[in-house]
Amino acid sequence: MDTRNEHTLRWERDVVAWHDEADVVVVGLGSAGACAAIEAAETGADVRVLERASGGGGTSALSTGQIYLGGGTAIQVACGFEDSADEMFQYLMATCGPEPDEAKIRLFCDESVAHYDWLVAHGVPFKGSFYGEGSYTPTDDCLSYSGSELTHAYRDIAKPAPRGHTVQQVGIEAGGQLMQSLIAAVEKTPARVDVDVRCESLVVNQARRVVGIAAVIEGRERLYRARRGVVLCAGGFIQNREMVKRHAPWLARCKYRMGTDGDDGRGIRMGMSAGGDAIRMHTGCIVLPFTVPKGLLRGVMVNRYGQRFINEDAYQTVVGEAALVHHDGQVFLIVDDAIYERPFPPTEFAAVGETIEELERELKMPERSLQNTLALYNAGAEKSEDTVFQKDAEHLQPLVHPPFGALDYRVEHSLWSVFTMGGLHTDTEGRVLTPDGYPVSGLHAAGRTTSGLAAQGYSSGLSIADATYFGRRAGRACASSEP
Amino acid sequence: MDTRNEHTLRWERDVVAWHDEADVVVVGLGSAGACAAIEAAETGADVRVLERASGGGGTSALSTGQIYLGGGTAIQVACGFEDSADEMFQYLMATCGPEPDEAKIRLFCDESVAHYDWLVAHGVPFKGSFYGEGSYTPTDDCLSYSGSELTHAYRDIAKPAPRGHTVQQVGIEAGGQLMQSLIAAVEKTPARVDVDVRCESLVVNQARRVVGIAAVIEGRERLYRARRGVVLCAGGFIQNREMVKRHAPWLARCKYRMGTDGDDGRGIRMGMSAGGDAIRMHTGCIVLPFTVPKGLLRGVMVNRYGQRFINEDAYQTVVGEAALVHHDGQVFLIVDDAIYERPFPPTEFAAVGETIEELERELKMPERSLQNTLALYNAGAEKSEDTVFQKDAEHLQPLVHPPFGALDYRVEHSLWSVFTMGGLHTDTEGRVLTPDGYPVSGLHAAGRTTSGLAAQGYSSGLSIADATYFGRRAGRACASSEP
Repeated sequence: MDTRNEHTLRWERDVVAWHDEADVVVVGLGSAGACAAIEAAETGADVRVLERASGGGGTSALSTGQIYLGGGTAIQVACGFEDSADEMFQYLMATCGPEPDEAKIRLFCDESVAHYDWLVAHGVPFKGSFYGEGSYTPTDDCLSYSGSELTHAYRDIAKPAPRGHTVQQVGIEAGGQLMQSLIAAVEKTPARVDVDVRCESLVVNQARRVVGIAAVIEGRERLYRARRGVVLCAGGFIQNREMVKRHAPWLARCKYRMGTDGDDGRGIRMGMSAGGDAIRMHTGCIVLPFTVPKGLLRGVMVNRYGQRFINEDAYQTVVGEAALVHHDGQVFLIVDDAIYERPFPPTEFAAVGETIEELERELKMPERSLQNTLALYNAGAEKSEDTVFQKDAEHLQPLVHPPFGALDYRVEHSLWSVFTMGGLHTDTEGRVLTPDGYPVSGLHAAGRTTSGLAAQGYSSGLSIADATYFGRRAGRACASSEP
Repeated sequence: MDTRNEHTLRWERDVVAWHDEADVVVVGLGSAGACAAIEAAETGADVRVLERASGGGGTSALSTGQIYLGGGTAIQVACGFEDSADEMFQYLMATCGPEPDEAKIRLFCDESVAHYDWLVAHGVPFKGSFYGEGSYTPTDDCLSYSGSELTHAYRDIAKPAPRGHTVQQVGIEAGGQLMQSLIAAVEKTPARVDVDVRCESLVVNQARRVVGIAAVIEGRERLYRARRGVVLCAGGFIQNREMVKRHAPWLARCKYRMGTDGDDGRGIRMGMSAGGDAIRMHTGCIVLPFTVPKGLLRGVMVNRYGQRFINEDAYQTVVGEAALVHHDGQVFLIVDDAIYERPFPPTEFAAVGETIEELERELKMPERSLQNTLALYNAGAEKSEDTVFQKDAEHLQPLVHPPFGALDYRVEHSLWSVFTMGGLHTDTEGRVLTPDGYPVSGLHAAGRTTSGLAAQGYSSGLSIADATYFGRRAGRACASSEP
């Protein structure tokens, strides 16, 4: 992979001839790029979408197709759930920190219902049904609790409501249907999509305004003039080994990197090259997949010292972050014979034992460490209380039925998945900001090329919510810029 | 504080007239800037140092004046300690991660003895004496263990040697003497120092090379042409509230920010504006001051759940990082009547009790949590073993003499101190690199304006080691650049 191409910035004065031009040039046809293109085209702007793969979709097409929406969407209402923009705001402010972007969250919550309606109006199908809990729905159902809404601390901060809206498609990769719908919506506009176009460098003029982009098509350079501006929707950087090593090396330990080849950080690097700030580059969405089947939440998650560190029913990305960032990815789920079910994805036992003492010994944990933890946990569970981490009573059951086992969720042994969450700093209009907080003229961005609603804490569906909602705003703002 | 000045970049074509010019313009007269100026001047270059305060010194002058050096310096040898560049390299690679800059560490270790000699030759005084352990020496002694050399894991990775070299001055702020000496050395060169000069913007030409800098003196703009280049030695960003909030909000929770007003991140922002990459912006050096008197290391550090999380004799910055980043800054040191001594700095009790059970209740910790922890700790300490975290036997003593107390080291209640460690990405010559890894022409940087030897893990003395050694290299490389 080319990570050392020095041509992430070019000068207009060196441009001999433009090969093509448009009002708005959108880089990337994932969910952010599609929404940017639709909005820009609907303002009447002439739009060009440049996609480096042979077809649109991006990482969104590989996703679960879950979108975090609320405040009383048609489906929430149909399924009998009460929600409001304010409750949603309280929840996101509490969970998206530290120091989440309040302006973005406020706006997104206020307009979430309208955004749902916009998606439906542009052909994205949702079934009017409630599924349950979790980051994905294997059925074609829609609504689920996709974050920490029901769990300790958060349930007292904001009235819980399910806000994960999964696009209607049977199977866990509903992102395919999402992107099929959005690309069809792009095709209904006059926006033109060019595929197999690899964007390499922004072109700036002497006033430091972005005025175009240099791309490579079949080995030949093509220069696109952007009269009103460029919108970078080129994904994150999880596939760029050097950038991950430099900014967030712990993420490289996760086995499954959620992203396409395009998630090589080029969009972020191009934006920085034109003066943009990149923020929260150390963060990622870290999924520790231990919650299927749900009965496993009755297990006890411990670190290498046999200590619990979180309520196991916290959202799986929250558990993943705690486990990887704070406990070195060295964690086990303790189960007994009564609660054990075969986990999905398949996960091996690191150790089994007829007693907790034996299990502790097999895991080479300090003597009495795991025994103390389980004794404390079981004593509470007997009374349906988790006095330490407040796991919900629903998931409390003393682990007393031998044999006991430690499911091996160490990051090297289990199918953790991850994508990057750091990126360009943008405002609510998708304008890329400099380190001093001023917009880079002619440059917008959205999706995982940017740092979005969630600074670090995550609920599933936030990335596509970010990409589609702020993609729309970036497209519209760019199309409305002075040429 | 001005954090939104949009003029961090200017164009040469807009320069009507330069007010002054030099081969090398050094921004900031802390330890990095002083060393850069000396080296640049010693090559014969015409050097201008621009300092925004009314005199040089910077944050280095407020520091303990400890410099991490080794490999067999004259003082190590005189005090009878064996060390080698390779042992030092193994130690730094193990402690400065994750993903420390190997090229910088290799070079620094190989040249550490020569760097010590250079400092001495330039008038920095060191007494040929060994003090002991710790991040500072209240006496005028020199050598001390200023990191994790003697503690679990690291003592087996590299042969321990004391490498903290404190400049000779009675009291804990020997940085004053360091800077007095270095500034005197600057004054012996033809380099000219201008004070009360606030640098605001780099000036670049159409080839995107840095060719000068715009500064403000008494409200009036002054433009300095830099024929060979600019060296940014302008400190970190701990005093910039917006930047800390955006990149590392947890650091803002520490009461004492180690820095001058100049540590407002302007150097970093100027460098980014000219195309430089900023890396590890989320990291900081976090000092949790619980190790004086040393007998307190026999205490037991626990988090809000009554759990231990580290060997208490790990270096205090390592404990500080673990406590703040991984345990939310909510930690207590449990002591009994036998080991208690009045801590320095003064620290209150969060709770006292005749039994651990009472202490646990007073601290509102979960029932049996702290009791289990202490039972496990005491059982090991009886046998001079810490089976969980391997604290050295020297610091193991069962806590069994009532009354018991919990010293309140929560971040809001205790005098934690902090500075930022993220900054511009530079190579071993101090050249500022773009996100694609290419040097920004005409731009060098050193000191806390850069991310240095330590990616995150820290030993005391590394910042001034970084600043002085790579400041020298940056000055020399800049002076040797093509004009």
